[in-house]
Order: sequence, then structure tokens, then C-alpha cells
Amino acid sequence: MGLYDNSRVITETVKKLSEKNSYQGLCHQHRDGAPLPSGEVLSEIISIARAILFPGFFGKSIINTGTISYHLGVNTERLYELLYEQILAGLCFVCDCEESNVRSVEEMRREAMEKAIDFIEYLPELRSVLSTDVAAAFYNDPAAHSQAEIIFCYPGLRAICNYRIAHKLLELDVPFIPRIISEMAHSETGIDIHPAAKIGLSFTIDHGTGVVIGATSIIGNNVTIYQGVTLGAKNFPLDDDGNPIKGIPRHPIIGDNVIIYSNATILGRITIGDNAVIGGNLWVTQDVAPGSRVQQPRPQK
Amino acid sequence: MGLYDNSRVITETVKKLSEKNSYQGLCHQHRDGAPLPSGEVLSEIISIARAILFPGFFGKSIINTGTISYHLGVNTERLYELLYEQILAGLCFVCDCEESNVRSVEEMRREAMEKAIDFIEYLPELRSVLSTDVAAAFYNDPAAHSQAEIIFCYPGLRAICNYRIAHKLLELDVPFIPRIISEMAHSETGIDIHPAAKIGLSFTIDHGTGVVIGATSIIGNNVTIYQGVTLGAKNFPLDDDGNPIKGIPRHPIIGDNVIIYSNATILGRITIGDNAVIGGNLWVTQDVAPGSRVQQPRPQK
Amino acid sequence: MGLYDNSRVITETVKKLSEKNSYQGLCHQHRDGAPLPSGEVLSEIISIARAILFPGFFGKSIINTGTISYHLGVNTERLYELLYEQILAGLCFVCDCEESNVRSVEEMRREAMEKAIDFIEYLPELRSVLSTDVAAAFYNDPAAHSQAEIIFCYPGLRAICNYRIAHKLLELDVPFIPRIISEMAHSETGIDIHPAAKIGLSFTIDHGTGVVIGATSIIGNNVTIYQGVTLGAKNFPLDDDGNPIKGIPRHPIIGDNVIIYSNATILGRITIGDNAVIGGNLWVTQDVAPGSRVQQPRPQK
Amino acid sequence: MGLYDNSRVITETVKKLSEKNSYQGLCHQHRDGAPLPSGEVLSEIISIARAILFPGFFGKSIINTGTISYHLGVNTERLYELLYEQILAGLCFVCDCEESNVRSVEEMRREAMEKAIDFIEYLPELRSVLSTDVAAAFYNDPAAHSQAEIIFCYPGLRAICNYRIAHKLLELDVPFIPRIISEMAHSETGIDIHPAAKIGLSFTIDHGTGVVIGATSIIGNNVTIYQGVTLGAKNFPLDDDGNPIKGIPRHPIIGDNVIIYSNATILGRITIGDNAVIGGNLWVTQDVAPGSRVQQPRPQK
Amino acid sequence: MGLYDNSRVITETVKKLSEKNSYQGLCHQHRDGAPLPSGEVLSEIISIARAILFPGFFGKSIINTGTISYHLGVNTERLYELLYEQILAGLCFVCDCEESNVRSVEEMRREAMEKAIDFIEYLPELRSVLSTDVAAAFYNDPAAHSQAEIIFCYPGLRAICNYRIAHKLLELDVPFIPRIISEMAHSETGIDIHPAAKIGLSFTIDHGTGVVIGATSIIGNNVTIYQGVTLGAKNFPLDDDGNPIKGIPRHPIIGDNVIIYSNATILGRITIGDNAVIGGNLWVTQDVAPGSRVQQPRPQK
Amino acid sequence: MGLYDNSRVITETVKKLSEKNSYQGLCHQHRDGAPLPSGEVLSEIISIARAILFPGFFGKSIINTGTISYHLGVNTERLYELLYEQILAGLCFVCDCEESNVRSVEEMRREAMEKAIDFIEYLPELRSVLSTDVAAAFYNDPAAHSQAEIIFCYPGLRAICNYRIAHKLLELDVPFIPRIISEMAHSETGIDIHPAAKIGLSFTIDHGTGVVIGATSIIGNNVTIYQGVTLGAKNFPLDDDGNPIKGIPRHPIIGDNVIIYSNATILGRITIGDNAVIGGNLWVTQDVAPGSRVQQPRPQK
Repeated sequence: MGLYDNSRVITETVKKLSEKNSYQGLCHQHRDGAPLPSGEVLSEIISIARAILFPGFFGKSIINTGTISYHLGVNTERLYELLYEQILAGLCFVCDCEESNVRSVEEMRREAMEKAIDFIEYLPELRSVLSTDVAAAFYNDPAAHSQAEIIFCYPGLRAICNYRIAHKLLELDVPFIPRIISEMAHSETGIDIHPAAKIGLSFTIDHGTGVVIGATSIIGNNVTIYQGVTLGAKNFPLDDDGNPIKGIPRHPIIGDNVIIYSNATILGRITIGDNAVIGGNLWVTQDVAPGSRVQQPRPQK
Repeated sequence: MGLYDNSRVITETVKKLSEKNSYQGLCHQHRDGAPLPSGEVLSEIISIARAILFPGFFGKSIINTGTISYHLGVNTERLYELLYEQILAGLCFVCDCEESNVRSVEEMRREAMEKAIDFIEYLPELRSVLSTDVAAAFYNDPAAHSQAEIIFCYPGLRAICNYRIAHKLLELDVPFIPRIISEMAHSETGIDIHPAAKIGLSFTIDHGTGVVIGATSIIGNNVTIYQGVTLGAKNFPLDDDGNPIKGIPRHPIIGDNVIIYSNATILGRITIGDNAVIGGNLWVTQDVAPGSRVQQPRPQK
Repeated sequence: MGLYDNSRVITETVKKLSEKNSYQGLCHQHRDGAPLPSGEVLSEIISIARAILFPGFFGKSIINTGTISYHLGVNTERLYELLYEQILAGLCFVCDCEESNVRSVEEMRREAMEKAIDFIEYLPELRSVLSTDVAAAFYNDPAAHSQAEIIFCYPGLRAICNYRIAHKLLELDVPFIPRIISEMAHSETGIDIHPAAKIGLSFTIDHGTGVVIGATSIIGNNVTIYQGVTLGAKNFPLDDDGNPIKGIPRHPIIGDNVIIYSNATILGRITIGDNAVIGGNLWVTQDVAPGSRVQQPRPQK
Repeated sequence: MGLYDNSRVITETVKKLSEKNSYQGLCHQHRDGAPLPSGEVLSEIISIARAILFPGFFGKSIINTGTISYHLGVNTERLYELLYEQILAGLCFVCDCEESNVRSVEEMRREAMEKAIDFIEYLPELRSVLSTDVAAAFYNDPAAHSQAEIIFCYPGLRAICNYRIAHKLLELDVPFIPRIISEMAHSETGIDIHPAAKIGLSFTIDHGTGVVIGATSIIGNNVTIYQGVTLGAKNFPLDDDGNPIKGIPRHPIIGDNVIIYSNATILGRITIGDNAVIGGNLWVTQDVAPGSRVQQPRPQK
Repeated sequence: MGLYDNSRVITETVKKLSEKNSYQGLCHQHRDGAPLPSGEVLSEIISIARAILFPGFFGKSIINTGTISYHLGVNTERLYELLYEQILAGLCFVCDCEESNVRSVEEMRREAMEKAIDFIEYLPELRSVLSTDVAAAFYNDPAAHSQAEIIFCYPGLRAICNYRIAHKLLELDVPFIPRIISEMAHSETGIDIHPAAKIGLSFTIDHGTGVVIGATSIIGNNVTIYQGVTLGAKNFPLDDDGNPIKGIPRHPIIGDNVIIYSNATILGRITIGDNAVIGGNLWVTQDVAPGSRVQQPRPQK
Repeated sequence: MGLYDNSRVITETVKKLSEKNSYQGLCHQHRDGAPLPSGEVLSEIISIARAILFPGFFGKSIINTGTISYHLGVNTERLYELLYEQILAGLCFVCDCEESNVRSVEEMRREAMEKAIDFIEYLPELRSVLSTDVAAAFYNDPAAHSQAEIIFCYPGLRAICNYRIAHKLLELDVPFIPRIISEMAHSETGIDIHPAAKIGLSFTIDHGTGVVIGATSIIGNNVTIYQGVTLGAKNFPLDDDGNPIKGIPRHPIIGDNVIIYSNATILGRITIGDNAVIGGNLWVTQDVAPGSRVQQPRPQK
């Protein structure tokens, strides 16, 4: 088959791909003048947020107490600018995809600015919350030499940091963007925390690959979770038409000081009581009393 | 130890590393004029394919119905050019590594062009198949707000998309390249689908980290799989010399409408019947009857 | 809220974030003139090391026997330069974070050069060790077509390669950097091998997502491990103050020729005897005799 | 002087540099939400324009008649988007710097879109005009082998192309941007053509370094100019306050078919008649009759 | 005018631009599989050539006598690969544009490889020739502190270096590429030396902006030229049809040890005798005797 | 000639190029641990300096009075870090090339830090000096619409800005680096100002291509120079051995308020008196009285 034929195949394929019914429901026609949600920009947003929250660990600058405010200032202003644009992107995206009443870009722009500035105001509190996570991870891992190692290297902390950012944005009713931020941590660390989950202070995830924390999960303070743990839904109530009902609480409630070992699966809106310990590789679908220890049966030999 | 000694250590180490028997079997001497398989180029290929299949979601362009064919045209032509080169790279790579009869680059070039144009022709059908996966993922996840969210954020769909591309290339007898495309999705999502597996329509993988689907697996329509599920081989028949025999069916057959919950392990050439439900954290090595539900024993307390 | 107010919120937030007690323990003030540990540079270090160890597979050069020494020479010299700088970065980082006696940058620079040149000298042996891993992976996977495919595509080999590099650096008393190299492989492959673990020749990890190998693990020769396997600690002895004691052997010892199937969890300083086979999804906390096979109980129906 | 002192010098210098009267008249406070004029984006605009005007010479695509419209389509749409944004940037920039009545960004955005689409409509005519310049350069230079060489290599054509783009934008009352486009060609080629100059068809500049063509110059058809030629102003009439009056015609009028050799300087609102030839290194401040030849006096020996 | 109209204008403009007679003579339809001449690649070629010719001045490597051959080896091999491809690009480009008999890409590929390897063989001689230029520039400029400053900073040497590379390629009958290399130096330095000019040893250009050296110029040894000097053609003999005859000697012959001061213009196939000195700003169109000094008349006051 | 032969030619050529006497005087062996002078880094230094001196014109940040000090702070600190490294590079470079007594890197590092901090302290004064140049350019050019246009677009100001930076570094006895900074402006604008020249306030260069200002030139306040003007040396006094004596005053002194029109050449240590006007294309080698006007003779017709 010669070059000419290839050209013909290409033009005919393009024609098919350009037919409206071919891309129905799979195409996104964006509003003129509205920014697109961008993985690249959101990645920069996370990098800048880390540089603000943990000064001197990320970015290329030498930080000292005399000049730290310059760096925090530039980073905070830049974070505001990028975040406001991505929030706007999220609002437009959802408006185009999901909503019936079309709002003007200008109206959404004002809303995006307000949400972004609210997030900026939250940064000092966010740093304070994350400091409890860093301290907990250091306390829980005998292999850790310093808090610096936790901050710089530990995937668990990175996933928790993304989650806390995404969760705050969700609380501010920012659509779409929180989910992308969660998935970025998921891809980087193998830890999948839904931004809608509620998680207390001093939260530790060790190793973490394969961890899944569902949207309606509630986790207390000082909880430790190991790799492969699932906090999932058992089944989905259906509506009269047989479709899954969205938004019903369907994931576990985990009390304070709970430890869940690797690859355990906790399913349904059950409660794991305070101070309970769940052994590895378990399948738990019923409440666990406070302080109890649950383990796998011995293997057959 | 001074700078001079360092220089000496370096030159002596280089001498050792350059000895033929040191790199025997670990070195690849490529054909002059033949392209190298390139992770970077394959990554661009996947990006362009996504931009063609889901117009307006990826890339930086605003798509509208008046100009959509320009973008699809440029992307399709570019996809052809890059893909043909990588197929050629795969053919040369395997020819050098694995085959006894050496073929000319020109002969392989013609073959690569044919295979690439065959893939291009498949694009409209590929889009149509993927539309069933998008719809299934939206139906199965109560946390999803729209198809757009599935397309833009869900790692399961990304892994399935890479798989369907890699599988088609494998059907076209393209060597080496399909495996790299699978591993790219594996690294990005933690989902490891062998390109030789056969998978029906409306396939959903939720969360997905740790999923493994082996080379001879066969999966029906409308199947849902959760994180950590393995469709693996139980053991490998050995030939008379005690070496594993390659190419024998050794992975499960999964029927239509089957659901497999997180961290379940299904091993060997067994059959999971239509409409069966497999509970989480299970180890399944025998056939499961259609419509049955299999669960883990209760944990000891 | 107008632009003016946003500016005010930003400046006030920056003021709060710049207060010393806000970033206490979360900030890293680096030594002037000392390099920072850099994920980007370490990523380049790994790429160059791969290009040296497996010539012709990575990098863009066509390798032939006449000119191979040029490429190995330039890469080895570059590896030395980058590695020495990152070792220095690690020494400074730890010196600042964890140590009481402050050493001069010049003193640490000399130490870093020595450690880097020691690593360079190790390269031929490293290549020889890795050749046993490549051969084992090829032997163990019926789906593999050639050693080339293992080298180019297999995440297991990538993780093992990073581990062997990180382990050598740890043996040379390089702080901090080995951990980052491990986490890079963890993020890329989902395989988390602590650099302090001791692992024999001919080691295979197949698929690999979710594998965790703890810091005091000891693994014999010719061991094969599948996805989701954990070699972990059961519990942490506490000191008189109730803090976990660091540095105690707490992970398993795995004998020669052992196979551990997917998602098995082996916990504590137990011994899995030579030639044992551990079934998938198991929770093993006691010694396993040499040559024995351990399996999961049958599921309830 | 120690590190501490350096830090002090830096903070004190920053304080001085941040004082309002220090940056009075040297600082540009941009409108929130308005884009900045960007050399980088304008550079991309010129590249895309060249790719549209001379298909197949610039950009990386193989052009053929079957697919040329895809490439022209994507490039034209992209040119519109980038150009509209830069026109808006120019409008905002000037509005902030030079104008008393402040206009809304939205109003300027609409204006920018109109101007950009007017420019797009002009592209076919622009290509037609440039084709006369290409043909003239080929005819005039005995060293040229083909029109392709002119298009691909000749700095004269690049400068003329930038000029014709900038001139059209100026006719559309786009502020600021045309000047930047001129200066880009100036920096690349050493040829400085003011965008306000009026230049006929079939214009050739050979070699070109040092050519200056002033803002009120008028140049006929089929004119050839060599390196170092200045079409400049002799003096600037002053107003009653002794300031130069802006906007008065002060540069030469050059007739059809004129040739001006290297380093000649033509000053003031004089007329060089049709078919005249001006010798090199001359200083001309008075009218030159049609068809005449002007030369330098013989050197003294 | 709304968004819809803009879309319409774009599609209509694209239609006009895609009409064949619109781009007649301005479009380049490239051969499938043939590389395109690339300014970017040629720029890399020049950088590598400089790194080979002047080791340690360019590139990021620390050079020492122990490892210099690694760097020269890698650079030389890379130079060969890139150069052969660009020579092929040049051959294809000209074949498509200018020649009637169409040659196969394979045939041209072999020719390109031969020419590239011939150039590689010339490198030691090229370095030796350039060493005379470096020495001359150092001798002639009282402001130069060292040869290193000449090599690293002087635009004159950069232009001469590009010229000597381009000239050798022209001698090897490489089409098109030499001209682009010349224009790259022209853009970088403002010095425009036609690659066909013949230039002796120990050539110095000081400052250099505006220098033009025509295609048939012949320059002896030890010549010094200042900024703005033109060695040009006086007029172009016409053939019977009134078209300029290409390829006739029309530029000056400059003897040994000649100095030409700034902005002098030497026109036509005249001879400037050995040891002559030409003053600045002169217009010279007749032979100058050996050893004579020519100057401008005194200015009128 | 086959591939094998090419390989042989390459290895033989590399052997020749690696012979010591081949690269004698053309090779730079750098000190281990010392940075290399880098065009790329110096280019970033100039960009940052411009962003500090003219806030809001360069860089991507929106500047407002509330946050301007953050940006100035980060930029000033970054400028210090980059500049100190490049000053050190310059000191090492010259030490290796030109000096007999070898100094330690540490000693030079301290010196580099002092010089860099001295430059930082000079920034407010530098801004103040440049503000006179901006005002003068605006006053002198009837085509300029605003100071903003001068700052953003005018090559003359860019060259002057680079000169004033380079000149200050030269006053601080920084070797090598000032010359590179000058050549960067030379390449960008065609204006070649030696960093050792002394230039007063309110200096204007219009168009500028081809301007050369020699090392010992002295220029008063409020001087205007047009394109192609040379302030050069007439001849170079030789020492007893016939070598040019370096460091003797050999370029012109230009008084206050002088105007020099395009392509004029002023040679030797002569004085152009205050308020003089020099016509274009002139060759001036003798003093010009204050207030006088010098012009070219009329052309012959």
C-alpha cells in the first residue's frame, strides 16, 4: 500500500471521527475565554503549596529567617493566581458538563477569586494540622531518622497533604479540582483518598500502596493505616429505577487511635471503635468494639 | 584520596565496564538508521490518542464543531507518523534480540507503515468501544458526578484505554511496543493488564491499584473489578527439560456481569460463571458457578 | 470582595506563615554553599546508572563495540560528578537536621568524593549481580520473550536496580539519599524495598505493585515474590519511656529458592525455610519449615 | 564579611528598591486579569504565521495536498487565539500607561477579538504580497539557487515578513505589539523597519544588517536595499516649548525600481525618484531625480 | 461580532489558504521518510563542533587529560549522526526543489554518510586552522587578555568558525546546509560571510557587526577586517534575456596582511594588494596597489 | 564505504583530536569544584536584574504596591546567588588561564561573595542612573509613545543596561564576566559597548545596530548616538618588540550634549567638544571644537 493510500485512509478516518454522533458524550466543548483544568498547573499548585507549608524542603531556594517572608510572599501570591484560575476552570467545566442554567464567566470568575482567597487564609491552619501528621509518622516508624526524612521522602505524608488540600477545596464547594488533586497523589503514591472523606489529626499511612479511603469515610485522631487497606462500600442501595443512589453514607467510621494492618478490607457503614487493632489481610464487614484486636485465622498447612 | 586517583579509578572502571564479557546479554547494539523504542515518544502517542478519542478533554485547544476536524486531522496524521516509527523500532528491536534471520530495515519499514495505518483505521471503532467503558464506570460509581469526570480523572479508564490500544497493536503482530504501553499505564495507575488478555465491552476497574490481569485471561462484557484483584496463573507446566512452557492458557475466564471485590486472587485456568460475585481478599483456585456469591470466612476475634 | 482585600489577605497570611513558631520543625534552613538533595538530579543519576549497566537500552546513543568505551566513559564521569554532589547534599542535610556537632562543608565534601568514587568502583560488580536478576526474571516469567524485554520493560527489575544502588550507598554510610532512591522506585513501580534490607542473587519480583520489604529483612538467593507481598514488622518493642526502639531486627528472614505468591503478608522476625512456597493472600506470623507449602483455607460459599 | 552581613545588605537593599519614589515611572502595575505582552508568545505568533504563509517550510509536519487544510486550520485557529490575547495585552498596557480614561477589560477584550479576526482575514492577501517579495529576492540575488532558499534562509525576507505583519496590526490600531514584532526582527536580522513605514510590492533587502527604515518612510514597488542603508530623519521640528513635535513626515519617499547600495544614508522628507540608483556609503539629504545615479567621490590616495 | 462569526471567518480563511494556487511556489512538500533541515539541529551541530574544537570551553564537562578522549569520542560520534541526517535533509530538500531527476532516499542517504564522515576526518585540520585565527585575534586586539577570552567571547571567531565549517561542507558539495550555518552566525553576530568565499589563515574580524563577505571573494592570510566592511559585487552581468548571470566572479580579491577599517565598502572583482591598508567609511571600486594606504577625504566643516 | 569504516574513521579522528599538542592553547582544563562561566546563567542574571530595575515590565508577575517587596526580595536574593557563582567562575577561569600564582577556590569564593554583595548594594543607584537614560530616550525619539515603550522595546536601552551592569562589575575587578555580558547585548542588539568605557547620564542610542564604543572611550552626559557609529582606535602603539601595547588611552572623549549621526566613525584619542554635532557617514580623526557641526561633502552626481 503506497503513501497515497495512507493519506486516503487518514482523511477518511478523520471524517468518521469528526461526525457528531461519533463523539457524542465523549467530547468537551469549552467556553471561549475560560481556562481548562490542567494537570500541569495543578501539579505546580501542589509544589508551591508544599514549598509554603514546609519552607526550605522544596524549591531551589536557601531559606533563612531574614528572607523567608520574601519567598513565602511570592509563593503565596503565585498560589493564589494559579488556584483562582483552576477553580474557575473547575466551575466552567462543571457548568458546561452538568448544569442546566448557564452562568456567565464573569460571575464564576468572582466566585473563583473568593474561594481562592478563602483557601489562602486557611494555609496557616493547614500547616498546623499537617505538623501533627508529620509528628505522628515520625513517632510510628522506627525506621525514620528525623521529621525531615518524613517531610522529604514519605509518600504517606504526600498523599495526606494532597488530601487535606483537596478536602478544604471541597468544603469551599470547588467542583472537579479536588478529585484531580486526589488522583495526582494516587498516581504518585498508590494511595487513593477521596477528598470528601473526613480525617482527624495525627494521621499516618505507612508504605501506603493500594490504600483506598472512600468518600463517606470518617476517621478519628491518631489513626495509623498500612499498605493495601481499603475503607470501602459494601453495596450500593438502589433507587426505584434500580440505579445506585448517590450520596448515602456507605463507608466505615474509624475511631481514635485505631491501627489497621496491611491489606485489611473494612466495608460498609460500620464502626471500628476507639483503640481497636485490625490485623492484616482481613475482610471486616461488621462493627468492631473499642479496644478489641481482630486477626486472621491461622493458615492451613 | 586526591583528584588524580579519582580519575584513575574512573578510567580503570570504564575499562572493566567496556570488556565484552562484562556486558554480554545486557547490551543492545542497535541497527544503524533504525529508531529506538522510546518511552517518551510512546507517551506522546498515548496523549495524542486520548486527544483524538475524547476531543476537548486533553490538549490545550478549544474544540468547536466548526474546527474539530482540523484538530482531529493534525492529531491523526501525527499519530500515524509517530506510531509507524515506534512500530518500526519494535520490529528492529525484536529482530536484533530474538530472531535468527535478519531482515532489512526497508522491509520492516514497509511493514510498520501498514500496521500503523491499520491501527489508524481502527480508531473510530476504538472510540466506540471505550464509550461503553465510560458509561459503565459512571453507572457503577455512586461518587462520580458525570462522564466528564470519568474521562478526565479516573485511573481505571486510563489503564483500560492503554490496554485497548496495546491489545489492538498486539493483534496486528506488533512486537515489544504493546508491552511498554501496558507498563506505562501500570506505572501511572498501579493497574497491570497484559496486552494479550481479551476483555469485553463495558469494563470497569475502580480505584485499581494492584490489579493484575494475566496474559491469557478472558473477560466477558460488563465486568467490574476493584483494587488489588489478581487474575493470575496457578503454576506453570514444565517441559521435559524442566523449563516452563510458554504460551499455554493459564489465567481465568471471567463471565459476563461478574463483580470481583478488592484484593481477591483468582488463579489458574478456571471459569467464573456469568453474574457471579467474588468477595474481597479471597483466594479462588476452582471454578465458580454462574450467579453464585463467594465470601471470606468470618475473622477470629 | 475586591482586589484590594485580596492583597490584604495575602499579606496578612504571609505574615502569619513567616512567624517562627509557625514553621518550627517544618522548615529546613540549609547551609550556604551546600547543595540541596534533588529528586530531579537523583532521577538523572538513576538514568545514567541504567545506561552504564545496560548499554544501548537507555539513552539515545547507538552503541557499537568500537565506541562503547566513549559512552561508558562520559557516563561514568558524569555519574561520579552528580553522585558526589548528592552525597554531599545528603551529608549536609543530615548534619543540619540530626547532628549536634557541626562539620565544615569542606570536610564533608572530601568524604562525599570518597564515597562517590567507592560507588563508581562497585559498578562492574553491580552489573554482574543484576545480570543474575535479569536471568531469573526471564526464567520465571512464561510471558517474557527475551532478556531485552525484562531490561527494557519490567518494573520488578527497575525496583531491584534502584534497591541495589541504594543498598550500596547505605553500606557506604551515605545518609538520606538511599531512601529517596527507594521512594523513586516506589512511586514508579509501587514496589517499596527499604535500602537496608539484605537481598541475595537472582531475585525476581513479578508485577510487583504493593510489595513492601522492611528494613531488617534478609532474603536468600533465587527468591521470587509476587504483587502485594509484605515482609513487615509485627510489633515494635517499646523502651522504658514507651517509645518504639529503633534498629531492632523485626522483619522476616527468607531462605533460598522461596516463592511467595501475591498479597501474602509475612510479619515479624520469623524464618521462611529454603525452598518453601507461601500461597497468596496469607497472613504468616510464625516460622515456616524448609520445603513446606502454606495455603489459604477454602472460601465459604 | 559574613553571611549574616550579606543577608542584612540584601534586606536593606530590597527596602530601598521597594520605596515608591525609587521606582516611579519605571514600574508597570498591570491590571488584574489582563494578559501581559510577551516576547515569547509573540515569537510563537510569528512562527505560526510563517508556517501558515509558507506551508511545509517551518514546523515539523510533512505537508501534502490531502492534509494541508488540517495544518492550516489548526495553525490559523491557534494564531487567532494567541494574537487576540496579545492584542488585548497591548490595549491594556497602553491604557494603563498612556491614557486618562480607563476602559474595562471586557470592552477591550471584544475590541481585541475583532482586530484579531480582521488580521486572520488578511492572511491570504498577506501571502500574496509576500510572494512578490520572494520572487524579487530570487531575481536580484545571483547567489540564490531557488525560491526555497530565500524562504528558508534569507534574513531580508524574515524582516519584511515581520514588518508586513506589524504594519497590518498598526493599520488595525493595535498599539505596542507592532513595535515589539519589529524589534524581534531587528534583533534577529539587524534590520530595523518601523511598522508605520509604507512599503510597496516586490521589496528586497539583501544582507541587511544595519538597515534602518523610519516611521514615515514611503517606499514604492520593486525597490532593492542593501546592508547598512538608513532612511532617516534629518532633524525634528520643535514646538513652542522646544519639544520635538511627534507625527510629522520626516523620512524619505523612495520611488519605484530604486536601488540603494550598502551603507548609504538618506535623510529627511526628500524624494528619490523612480529608477534612481544610490551608491554605497553616501549621505543624501536632497531630492534625487528619477533615473539618476549618485556616487561617492573618489578616495584620496 | 460573535464567536460564531469568528469561527466562520477562520474556516473561510483556511479554505482560501488551502487553495493550491494560493500557495504555489511558497509551499514545500517534503519526501516521506526524509528529514527536514532544522535550525535547531544545526544549532546543536555547531555547539558540538565547538566543544570538540575547543575542549573545556563549551559544554558542561570538566575536561582533564585522563578523560578527554571520552568526551571527544561521544561528541564526535554524535556530530557524525546529526550531521549525516542534516546533510541528507539538504540533499532531499534540493532534490525536491531544484532538480528534475528524482533520486531515491536510500541513494542520498549513502551519499550523506560519506560526506559526513569526510567532514569528521577534516576536524583535526579544522582545529589547526582555527588555532591561527585565535592567535591572530589575540595579537591584533590590545583589549584582549588571553586566548581564552577570544575563544569564549569574541563574535568574530564564532563567525569565522561557522564559516570554516560551512565552507568545508560546500567543498563536499553539500547543498543548502552551509547557507543556513552562515545565516546562523549572521543572526548571532551580524557578520555575513558567504560559505563559498575563500579565506586564508590567521583571519581576524573585530567587532564585526555589518560585515558582508560575498560568495566569490578571495582573502589571503593574516587579513584583519573591522565592523561594517563590505566585500561586495558592483553589478551583475546580464544574460541575453536580461537576467543576472549566476556564478561569475564578482567580489574582491584581498591580498595577505591587508587591514580594512570599519564601514569600508570594496566592490567588484578588484584586487587589494598585499599589505595594503584601507581606511574606514571608504567606497573602493578599483584596484589598490600592494602596500598602499587609502583614506577618506577630510570632512567639510 | 560501510558502517565499519565509518566507525574506524571516527575512532582514528578521536585519537588525533585527543593528542595533547593538537589542543594545546585551545583547551580549558577547569578546576574541580569550580563553576564554569555560563552564558545561560548570565542571561538569567540579566533577566532578573531587569525585573528588579523595572518592576512589572519583565517576568510574569503582576506587581502591586502591597506585594512588590516580596518580588524584589526573591529576585534580589536570587541575583546575589547566581552572580556570586558567576563571579567565582570568572575568578577561577582567569586564575587558570592567565595567572601564575594559583589561589585556592575557597579564597576566591570569599572574594566572589564580597564583590556580589557590593553589586547588590549598587542596585538602587543603578536604577536611578538608568532612569535618566529612559527619560533621555523618550525625549529624543519623536516615534516613542511612552517611557514604557522605551523600557519594554528599545534595544538601545537594553544595551546600555547591560553596559552599566558590566561596567560596575569591572569597577569591582570582576574578570571575564563583564565582557560576556557586553557580548550578550552585542548579539541581541548589534551594539558593542566595551565594559571599560566611561559613559555619563542620560545616554541615548537610537536604532543602534553596528555601534562600537571602544574600551578607553569617555562619554559625557546627555549624549545621543545613532546606528553604525564607531568610537574606535586609530592605531596601536607598539612596544620595542613590535607588539601592540595594551591599556593605553586610544579612543575618543565625547563632551556633554553631543549628537553623532549614523555610521560616523570617530577614531583615536581625540576630543569632540560639548554640544558638537557630527554628521552621518563621516570619518573623524581630529578634535572637533565645542558647538561645531561637521558634515559630509556633497556627493558627486
